[in-house]
Amino acid sequence: MTPQDPAFLERLKGIVGPAHVLTEPADLAPFLAEERGRYQGAATVAVRPGSTEEVAAVVAACAEAQVPVVPQGGNTGLVGGAVSEAGEVVLALGRLNRIRALDPAAHTLTAEAGCILADLQGAAEDAGLLFPLSLGAEGSCQIGGNLASNAGGLNVLRYGTARDLCLGLEVVLADGRIWHGLSGLTKDNTGYALKHLFIGAEGTLGIITAAVLKLFPRPTESATALLAVPDLTAALDLLGRARARSGDSVSAFEVMNGFSLEVAVRHLPGARAPLEEPTPWAVLVELATSRPDAPLRPVLETLLEEAFEAGLVSDGVIAESLDQRAALWNLREGIPEAQKPEGGSIKHDVSLPLAAIPEFVAAADAAVDALVPGIRPCTFGHLGDGNLHYNLSQPAGADKDAFLARWEEISARVHDLVVERGGSISAEHGIGQLKVAELERLKPALDMDLMHRLKKALDPDRVLNPGKVVR
Amino acid sequence: MTPQDPAFLERLKGIVGPAHVLTEPADLAPFLAEERGRYQGAATVAVRPGSTEEVAAVVAACAEAQVPVVPQGGNTGLVGGAVSEAGEVVLALGRLNRIRALDPAAHTLTAEAGCILADLQGAAEDAGLLFPLSLGAEGSCQIGGNLASNAGGLNVLRYGTARDLCLGLEVVLADGRIWHGLSGLTKDNTGYALKHLFIGAEGTLGIITAAVLKLFPRPTESATALLAVPDLTAALDLLGRARARSGDSVSAFEVMNGFSLEVAVRHLPGARAPLEEPTPWAVLVELATSRPDAPLRPVLETLLEEAFEAGLVSDGVIAESLDQRAALWNLREGIPEAQKPEGGSIKHDVSLPLAAIPEFVAAADAAVDALVPGIRPCTFGHLGDGNLHYNLSQPAGADKDAFLARWEEISARVHDLVVERGGSISAEHGIGQLKVAELERLKPALDMDLMHRLKKALDPDRVLNPGKVVR
Repeated sequence: MTPQDPAFLERLKGIVGPAHVLTEPADLAPFLAEERGRYQGAATVAVRPGSTEEVAAVVAACAEAQVPVVPQGGNTGLVGGAVSEAGEVVLALGRLNRIRALDPAAHTLTAEAGCILADLQGAAEDAGLLFPLSLGAEGSCQIGGNLASNAGGLNVLRYGTARDLCLGLEVVLADGRIWHGLSGLTKDNTGYALKHLFIGAEGTLGIITAAVLKLFPRPTESATALLAVPDLTAALDLLGRARARSGDSVSAFEVMNGFSLEVAVRHLPGARAPLEEPTPWAVLVELATSRPDAPLRPVLETLLEEAFEAGLVSDGVIAESLDQRAALWNLREGIPEAQKPEGGSIKHDVSLPLAAIPEFVAAADAAVDALVPGIRPCTFGHLGDGNLHYNLSQPAGADKDAFLARWEEISARVHDLVVERGGSISAEHGIGQLKVAELERLKPALDMDLMHRLKKALDPDRVLNPGKVVR
Repeated sequence: MTPQDPAFLERLKGIVGPAHVLTEPADLAPFLAEERGRYQGAATVAVRPGSTEEVAAVVAACAEAQVPVVPQGGNTGLVGGAVSEAGEVVLALGRLNRIRALDPAAHTLTAEAGCILADLQGAAEDAGLLFPLSLGAEGSCQIGGNLASNAGGLNVLRYGTARDLCLGLEVVLADGRIWHGLSGLTKDNTGYALKHLFIGAEGTLGIITAAVLKLFPRPTESATALLAVPDLTAALDLLGRARARSGDSVSAFEVMNGFSLEVAVRHLPGARAPLEEPTPWAVLVELATSRPDAPLRPVLETLLEEAFEAGLVSDGVIAESLDQRAALWNLREGIPEAQKPEGGSIKHDVSLPLAAIPEFVAAADAAVDALVPGIRPCTFGHLGDGNLHYNLSQPAGADKDAFLARWEEISARVHDLVVERGGSISAEHGIGQLKVAELERLKPALDMDLMHRLKKALDPDRVLNPGKVVR
């Protein structure tokens, strides 16, 4: 059956109400757009259920009609995971936006899939607690999508990825049944870890409708510095010292190469150079604690003194105010935006074993320069997690389209170097459809076989987000 | 084929060498024994492979011959998960005992499945780091078994369960293929989370042969206290205050009811009463940090002053030395042993949402006393994790066998009360064979359906540990 079939549309309207079955192009447009403009959705129907039961009924109707379903949260993904084909129905979770419970004693928050990440951060803050998941899109991304893509972001080093922050899930399965896994227990060894099947599966094994999330004591104090380091080896040495010195209170350890810092300073509104001289690499380190009796500023100062003496750090600035802290973070978070005026950018989201990172960057820089002389690596990322956004700006003055036309060739080279060193070609953005072919090329056959077995076990008729992750 | 078939035995001997295929009763005995004496293994063959490749070849041979395989680590499990039936082969992992790598900068340790937990703790300590998994059997249990059963123990509140401490796995699948998942990356979103299938699956979906484990900065300082609290509500209040006050440095928060503390003092060699008066409940709290500049003793003292004033604590002792700390921990860890002279004990390993615990304990105490007047709840456990070892000592002077004969009836009542409150009937010990029937009785049909689908997807011929977890 096609989604345009009148009987099918009537059934959907009967479930969610006519106002929430969208078929007009103007209504559909936001659900067909894609963050980076690389894809254009093609569904002719989008459904906006208002409850888990409605999600279940919609999926059951789609399964029966053999119409594939593309679940969509805030539509901020970077790999085309929420982009629809013609003949598919977009199932938008935005109306499932209730916080069902917040238990301060248990440090848990139970939220529906369509809750905006920033709203959950705010709800935790209102309770004097912290929900640590934090990323660029937090003002519009939804927690269901964060979990379906196992989002990372800025606080992974201390608090883990979305997976680590999730104590339980409620999920609509491919046949429309509802799996109730919201107990929120820290310890439960009664059989297989079902929730982990759905986290990071990008909606291909089930549709997350609600989650129990972990909260933490809210840091009452932080100390932030931006430091010039000579190379990545020094940065890694500094990371180890920071972890030990601070009682594992390092909440962020971000790295930027000289070019990425330079474009941030050049293009971001109001940005100023934080350091006196250019540096090959800079580190943004932040310590945070909820301990009221143990200030972190002296810890950071001691750390920096030692690092200067050891030659690990050549210059640096400690934030003296919340405004200065925000200015330092703005430089780091603004890099993707600041890259745009520099022309085309071929982007990678890779992770590597920490020890392999310095040599990888050297090898990759040489390899891409051999392919495109004058290419400008704009390398930044979450060094503490081994995660680099290895973005490549076109040579100054080169033709943007001609440069971007070489995306696949250049990415293949970078990904080969990553995999040879035991790394991952998608650290935090997922596979979606952007990296399906690269996954098939680079993932061992046995891994792909296991993934196909899981897909077949949970979604034998391929109703859920077909063509994403496994195809 | 039966395992005694000469051709089959020859094939096994060809793989692992004749010395490592055990068929003599005396040689087999340790692999057929069971920790609590509730089960007796019945396999006539045990194989001791010396490498992952040998494990793979043994499993392939067993799969071909349709002989089921029971993987066994240190054989310290408490639910009969490593107990064999006649016609099965025990596959003992103890010879896979190499530490393959320890990377201090990355804070990772790569170890084979047969490594003794205490040896891994020691290796981390030698590198100035901490591997935090810690439990009663650590001197003989093996890391492969710890992961297969998702072991918990004493440090879960701070560091998580075995699952949380695992960055990667190497696994032999049911058909003898080897899954290589030892990359050890913190972030890797390239498809489904395969490692989580095998952790906690008790060897029913694959046999873990090696793992990458997370290490942490070693705490350089700790502060430990045993406190008298009037009830569990006060204990939970104290837990929240301790987490916030200490910057989330609470590494243990254990609870003991008055009877459990009393039997520990009465029966453990050299034990002395830590408090002046009997108390309904006691809490053992420990704070730990690797921060050299921020002592925890004053934090604990401030916390206790506040708690006294708020009426949460009526008496307490802070450990003044490592010996005193050891004496306090000995009371807590010795409870299972100290229960033995008091006669039969019907044991439960349950977890509940934290807020439900006080009411659950009251309801369960009343319910079991209604069944067996004079029954003596010996309740202790990891309150910070919502995990109680709700053990029930027989009434003083009652007949032990008659009491133990009512195990299933009493357990069913306790488990009903747990499940009604959203809890788990196995917080950390797993299902094995002991709780298979209770799992089937109490787990929702949809959960069981999903588990059977996974079993069928990964082990369609039921070669791996049949009858455990799912049957």
